Amino acid sequence: MDANPVLAEAVRGNWVENRHRGAFAVVDAGGRIIAASGDIERPIFPRSAIKSMQALAIFSAHADEKFHPSEEELALACASHHGEEIHTQGVNRFLERLGLGVDDLECGAHQPTNAATREALRAAGRAPNALHNNCSGKHSGMLSVALAMGVDTHGYVERHHPVQQRVRRTVEAVIGEPLSEDRCGTDGCSIPTFAAPLRAFAFGFARMATGEGLSPDEAAAARRLLDAATRHPHLVSGTGHPDEAIMTAFNGRVMQKVGAEAVQCGAIRDKGWGYAIKCDDGNVIASQAMLATVLLKFADPDADQRKVLEALKHQPIKNVRGMIVGEMRATEPIAGLGLTAG
Amino acid sequence: MDANPVLAEAVRGNWVENRHRGAFAVVDAGGRIIAASGDIERPIFPRSAIKSMQALAIFSAHADEKFHPSEEELALACASHHGEEIHTQGVNRFLERLGLGVDDLECGAHQPTNAATREALRAAGRAPNALHNNCSGKHSGMLSVALAMGVDTHGYVERHHPVQQRVRRTVEAVIGEPLSEDRCGTDGCSIPTFAAPLRAFAFGFARMATGEGLSPDEAAAARRLLDAATRHPHLVSGTGHPDEAIMTAFNGRVMQKVGAEAVQCGAIRDKGWGYAIKCDDGNVIASQAMLATVLLKFADPDADQRKVLEALKHQPIKNVRGMIVGEMRATEPIAGLGLTAG
Repeated sequence: MDANPVLAEAVRGNWVENRHRGAFAVVDAGGRIIAASGDIERPIFPRSAIKSMQALAIFSAHADEKFHPSEEELALACASHHGEEIHTQGVNRFLERLGLGVDDLECGAHQPTNAATREALRAAGRAPNALHNNCSGKHSGMLSVALAMGVDTHGYVERHHPVQQRVRRTVEAVIGEPLSEDRCGTDGCSIPTFAAPLRAFAFGFARMATGEGLSPDEAAAARRLLDAATRHPHLVSGTGHPDEAIMTAFNGRVMQKVGAEAVQCGAIRDKGWGYAIKCDDGNVIASQAMLATVLLKFADPDADQRKVLEALKHQPIKNVRGMIVGEMRATEPIAGLGLTAG
Repeated sequence: MDANPVLAEAVRGNWVENRHRGAFAVVDAGGRIIAASGDIERPIFPRSAIKSMQALAIFSAHADEKFHPSEEELALACASHHGEEIHTQGVNRFLERLGLGVDDLECGAHQPTNAATREALRAAGRAPNALHNNCSGKHSGMLSVALAMGVDTHGYVERHHPVQQRVRRTVEAVIGEPLSEDRCGTDGCSIPTFAAPLRAFAFGFARMATGEGLSPDEAAAARRLLDAATRHPHLVSGTGHPDEAIMTAFNGRVMQKVGAEAVQCGAIRDKGWGYAIKCDDGNVIASQAMLATVLLKFADPDADQRKVLEALKHQPIKNVRGMIVGEMRATEPIAGLGLTAG
């Protein structure tokens, strides 16, 4: 297997300390490769980067007609949220709408991603619950799918439960590739995650952004989800997160979502292009530098948007005393590496 | 630049999620390469993996004759300790021996590495101080060098301070390579770190283990430091750390020290071999799997030692609910990759 190119590097002083390889693809809804670097046919686990794709099942199962989730709740279904009050309260309302509660969530509990919320919980002597899990909105959406399908919600995270079967078929339809038990793992929140070629996830986001190749109902559902996510960037991520910063700056033009282990997926909506990025070694900061390079080159940023992206493309590394001793940066040749003409 | 081989990988379910490249060298005191994989001439920052080498300056400056540091204090000078009470008290005694105190340390403060100590500090409403810094023992050793040299201790962390000049010359002499301002950065604890070929650090540890190529005084100093570190593995690291587990299991036969950003250095003392390992992307767990492979193959482990190493070679990955969903593991071909006959 050939090595992917070095797309980001950590510099300390005047010498490169770490190298981060990866691949990315920018694809249109007809499947044309706008740009690519590295092995874009290698199957990768998309993890949380495709929550908006998985949330399409809410519509295909007609849970939207039954429960009428708000735009905020749809944004939370696409979210890796930070467990801030606005997130946990929102998810709680979503569950109440379904006649369910926190005990129906099977994602497990973890400390909220947001540091201030974590400190406040700790100061109050309280343990986090499943609402604080960054995936609790997605899980609420999946519970709505179970109810709309008329199946037992219990075990909805399991690979062979009707909910996960439906989610799998939904993702397969959008990315245009079969998923396989031979390339399957369990995600942090206990649902299955299936590996598929990096290119296919970029393609899927191009189709979600344009509706091309989808049924009218699927296209409408995709539009509602991307609208919900891009109108509520704070609900999809949290205070200070790059996804919030990017989606806020691009004001609806860019859908952007991180996935665990350094996956970045989304769409440049006005161009009808989807993109997918994976850093081979799972370093999230490196993948942010890669993402910034892709959006700087392909998303036609204005000055304010460029500022947000440049800050991700060059991220300072500090030492214990707070001195800046280096930076994580996208490698300079990235833009020229194996790119197809746009 | 050719890519280093994949030496470790993270598997989720039945599919590889992340790949970790790296290089390693096992070298004898004559400079013969016993085994190697990847580009061992590429300069890497050794970071904290060479604290025992830096501590040789205590002897070359005759600070040992002036202050008579205990074996425990010498172990702490080689340590990335976890800030447990035994560590902070030990460093405090070392500083008292010098007539100095915590305010003379220029390493900065960070939360102790040990979780229980961190929780106890937090519960007591106390902030960590410089004693908790994992490098505070090394810094105490450097302060002893300043006093023995009769120079101002203030600014002893700076690149051009006589202490750092002496440490630099000491390391150059042991590894047999010049260090350069052109390959220099600032470490987490504010002292300079110089990049040099991976092979040279392995060579340096072989010379420290055997005394070959060193003056009688240097050889005696190296022996005292490696004896101190291997007799007090808990002082060199902390509760539950792989370095403690390995050095305890090998009972003096193996000196092992981690450095930040996934460096592993040490010596198989009875064979007279030094080794150095760097994971290209800075992933510490991956570098532990690489280390385990090297020691399994070259350190002739008995059953108990093998058990410690196997646990590092295959480390479970758990999800939020505590389910084992994958593992970080050394890649199987590692033992055959580019090895010179031993």
